[in-house]
Amino acid sequence: MDDSDFTRTEYDARLAKTRAAMAEAGLDTLILSDPSNMAWLTGYDGWSFYVHQAVIIGPDGPPLWWGRSMDTAGARRTVWMQADQIHGYDDTYVQNPAKHPMETLAALLADLGWASGRVGVEMDNYYYSAKAHDVLARSLSLRDATGLVNWQRAVKSPAEITRLRRAARIVEAMHQRILDIAEPGLAKHKLVAEILHAGTIGADGHWGDYPAIVPMTPSGLDATAPHLTWDDRPMQRGEAHFFEIAGVYRRYHCPQSRTLFFGEPPSTYRRAEEAVQEATAAALAVARPGALCEDVAEAFNSTLNARGFHKDSRVGYSIGLSYPPDWGERTLSLRRGDKTELRPGMVFHFMPALWLDDGGIEITEPILITESGVEQLCRLPGTLFVKG
Amino acid sequence: MDDSDFTRTEYDARLAKTRAAMAEAGLDTLILSDPSNMAWLTGYDGWSFYVHQAVIIGPDGPPLWWGRSMDTAGARRTVWMQADQIHGYDDTYVQNPAKHPMETLAALLADLGWASGRVGVEMDNYYYSAKAHDVLARSLSLRDATGLVNWQRAVKSPAEITRLRRAARIVEAMHQRILDIAEPGLAKHKLVAEILHAGTIGADGHWGDYPAIVPMTPSGLDATAPHLTWDDRPMQRGEAHFFEIAGVYRRYHCPQSRTLFFGEPPSTYRRAEEAVQEATAAALAVARPGALCEDVAEAFNSTLNARGFHKDSRVGYSIGLSYPPDWGERTLSLRRGDKTELRPGMVFHFMPALWLDDGGIEITEPILITESGVEQLCRLPGTLFVKG
Repeated sequence: MDDSDFTRTEYDARLAKTRAAMAEAGLDTLILSDPSNMAWLTGYDGWSFYVHQAVIIGPDGPPLWWGRSMDTAGARRTVWMQADQIHGYDDTYVQNPAKHPMETLAALLADLGWASGRVGVEMDNYYYSAKAHDVLARSLSLRDATGLVNWQRAVKSPAEITRLRRAARIVEAMHQRILDIAEPGLAKHKLVAEILHAGTIGADGHWGDYPAIVPMTPSGLDATAPHLTWDDRPMQRGEAHFFEIAGVYRRYHCPQSRTLFFGEPPSTYRRAEEAVQEATAAALAVARPGALCEDVAEAFNSTLNARGFHKDSRVGYSIGLSYPPDWGERTLSLRRGDKTELRPGMVFHFMPALWLDDGGIEITEPILITESGVEQLCRLPGTLFVKG
Repeated sequence: MDDSDFTRTEYDARLAKTRAAMAEAGLDTLILSDPSNMAWLTGYDGWSFYVHQAVIIGPDGPPLWWGRSMDTAGARRTVWMQADQIHGYDDTYVQNPAKHPMETLAALLADLGWASGRVGVEMDNYYYSAKAHDVLARSLSLRDATGLVNWQRAVKSPAEITRLRRAARIVEAMHQRILDIAEPGLAKHKLVAEILHAGTIGADGHWGDYPAIVPMTPSGLDATAPHLTWDDRPMQRGEAHFFEIAGVYRRYHCPQSRTLFFGEPPSTYRRAEEAVQEATAAALAVARPGALCEDVAEAFNSTLNARGFHKDSRVGYSIGLSYPPDWGERTLSLRRGDKTELRPGMVFHFMPALWLDDGGIEITEPILITESGVEQLCRLPGTLFVKG
């Protein structure tokens, strides 16, 4: 058994935490459409979230897996529950305007006697559409339970932290590959091919899984925008090139960004680098159990502002198990107004990216809240990368 | 200008087709959350669909882009419209249970005087959540317009077909890489690293974009399940290994699957191969303008059944421009009951995969409906791959 495998005891604990949160929210049954919540509670893994599927936590007993009939084979091979907890709908329901898969889920709940209770659904999740909700609402009394399970995931178990540490080694290896081969004139897609290769080969004997977000690798003016991907233009001197990438070990993500220059960076970038470094140090100095999420943001922003730079967006978010399209957990945000208390075992992508008029600077860190403070999961220097 | 670039004339034609469909559906305004529909109408490209965003087609004038404030920079760099057609909401709306980005979209529509008309939304799309719908429904009269734009995309323009042909060369190169390096004992993730590398390097001088679905590469019993991805187990003799992958050129997808054996495949697989080949030939023989989608499926299934094999799921679907989590267009399906008439310029992933008790066999083809029949976009032999 791999030391990052999840035991049945761990799954039982996750289920118990979830049932406690359901009780507090007054829910009898919970329908989970978020693939990361489905995986966290059952182990289910597969790229099948492009059709309707769910994990259902009923008033008692193990979770149920429900989805497309052809995916029950993948469920049988990945979840810890037994075959009779796996339910498939036939293929004629797939992408067919004349009928909807949620009709079969409503029927399943009725069969189980769960249709009369209060049923939670994840109303603001990618994989729970407005139409899915309409169909279920015809026969069920639905309550919004967006984030209920995501919040149970905020504090990581030792086995989860083992996975995250392996992912940290992988993202370090990916950045090292960038440093090894990037040079002026290299077409960006050729560099991205190497990044993807390094991320999948993995590091320290651990293989790389696919990231929930592909590499975002813009250069120059494109780097004024945070979410552009790549094309085949050659990298140039005199431009910032940023690389927002994640190492992934068995669905656990360790994102980290760095910014590369060929030759000495412009003085604006050196000033921005110093400001980000100083503000990051100030933020990490307050990140410890008992501090609030907004305290970390405040320490960062006040230091940054004193240096003449400003950041409008949050400076970090909770990370862990994820599926596309987002490697964040969509719970804690390091920003003003988030009064969640930090606890040991929480893990964040500390994300002090600045987008300037002529490019971007991203020097970011995955961090773990420890018993006494904070640990940076990666060992890369927190500087601009300069080459040639 | 690249010969696969889309001209302003092409975008105008797409907008005119969309407005005609809106008129037929009785819609004054259309809110599009599907990233592929957003891109098809405006050129917008970026991995920002993990937050709420949309393209809005009003009663007149160019489309509007609406999304997170930090992503307006990416919109300015990718869409054909002017800066005053780009609208951002501030970052405090992101993943914040206390407020919702759709409140700002409702306010924008009110400002424009579009709030009183009939407004279409894509109710069964990944990126239009039940919560988003609830918020908009407070102030707007909403109608379901799922698939309205997807259907306008079914017949491809010459520039789109150019992109698809380039994607076809890329997927061929990816399969060639598999054939070159796969061998018994090779850990699967090492092979996947090469597949991703080949897909990104591209082919024939054209770079590779990211696929809307990562490689699905199961072996042996895992290949009884269609949507498992990969891990680090070594490939073995005596098992089927299938590779469902896509080449992608500038967001246009050419998926194709092949199945690999080391040494002579078991006789069941040889019989399945012959059945699939014969049934595929029968299906492609009827695929021409004027035939119905279900005619193609019927020709396939009747031939397959006569050979003693059965397939429950559809045998193909429309492909083209796409973003995660699905490379299909979610419109035409090659299955019983789909009475859509084939037209020149339609492109399908013809997908006669069989999942057997001890593995899977996938020999699939991207196909283009021509004026007189059908063209296979890829030149790979339609056989089991056998090596060693």
